[in-house]
Amino acid sequence: MNYPSKLIEDAVVEISKLPSIGKKTAMRLVLHLLKQDPDVSIALAESLVNLRTKIRYCTECHHISDRAICSICEDDKRNQHTICVVEDTPDVIAIENTLQYNGLYHVLGGLIAPLDGISPSDLNIQTLIKRVSQGNVKEIIFALSATMESDTTAFYITKKLQDFDVKISTIARGIPVGSELEYTDEITLGRSILARVKYQ
Amino acid sequence: MNYPSKLIEDAVVEISKLPSIGKKTAMRLVLHLLKQDPDVSIALAESLVNLRTKIRYCTECHHISDRAICSICEDDKRNQHTICVVEDTPDVIAIENTLQYNGLYHVLGGLIAPLDGISPSDLNIQTLIKRVSQGNVKEIIFALSATMESDTTAFYITKKLQDFDVKISTIARGIPVGSELEYTDEITLGRSILARVKYQ
Repeated sequence: MNYPSKLIEDAVVEISKLPSIGKKTAMRLVLHLLKQDPDVSIALAESLVNLRTKIRYCTECHHISDRAICSICEDDKRNQHTICVVEDTPDVIAIENTLQYNGLYHVLGGLIAPLDGISPSDLNIQTLIKRVSQGNVKEIIFALSATMESDTTAFYITKKLQDFDVKISTIARGIPVGSELEYTDEITLGRSILARVKYQ
Repeated sequence: MNYPSKLIEDAVVEISKLPSIGKKTAMRLVLHLLKQDPDVSIALAESLVNLRTKIRYCTECHHISDRAICSICEDDKRNQHTICVVEDTPDVIAIENTLQYNGLYHVLGGLIAPLDGISPSDLNIQTLIKRVSQGNVKEIIFALSATMESDTTAFYITKKLQDFDVKISTIARGIPVGSELEYTDEITLGRSILARVKYQ
């Protein structure tokens, strides 16, 4: 693509580094910003710099936080005996949006993936074990995606926690609400039969 | 949506002001940036601020430029007698990418639209008339979208230029390359018959 200005080229290149945004979309966004008041671009730029330079992570659960301890860990009204283990921050947000869970979280910051060079020491597993070892935790719930890496990670953590008196569970796999039986893949359908629950 | 941090909320709000980016996509971009090196966000922010504060427009044709006169107007090898009149900057880029046009441009910066409060004085029409009045221009080509506003604008400019010895043309309307006759709308098909050209 021919760029009429070096400034435009720079902006297009930077914007198109974002996931799912190509050069054409980036160009469209650039031309949009050029039509707006300069304050719009400046506010956007400032929010991005602040986001990346001022953000902090909760020292307890590793969730994103404005302070040393996040609002979830700080909340006395939440169940302090249950920890939901998730892969990353978006998972906490997704579970919070369900309004069905009232315990604490622990963000691993990834999954064990030897092929990608991610070993247990790269994840927040040691801090999870420390939290459990303090004796206040009664249940660990794995809320991980249904992948090989998730299974490996859950298995590794379970092994590490076997000496503690803590119940370990995982979120239910089954047929999503609203989806049709005949189009469900066999593994999910098979698991949902094996893991059937009492009716009413 | 619940945001774990005010910094995230600010960034999501600013990003979702961009066209075709909603809050969910903005959140995904924010979480992506958080996983990257801080330099990525800072470079993006700087490119946006530079884009909006340092950009200049060519004093001749009003196209985006790094200098007072843009690289197209400055190029001696281009046909100095033909001016292609377009609505906005992206149109110049689109026509340049065809590699079929070797003249100059004039960016109107919009179209006459009384309902939206855009009158001829809001557009770069006076400077176009001045360029034509200097006597060097032999042809004006309207390369505008096929809309009511475009027709109004082209008609207004033609009236203004009637005292000058300048040929006025408009880009061909017809059936796009690769599209099928039976699915073409009647107006386009009708026009393409009226504006038929000699075969070979």
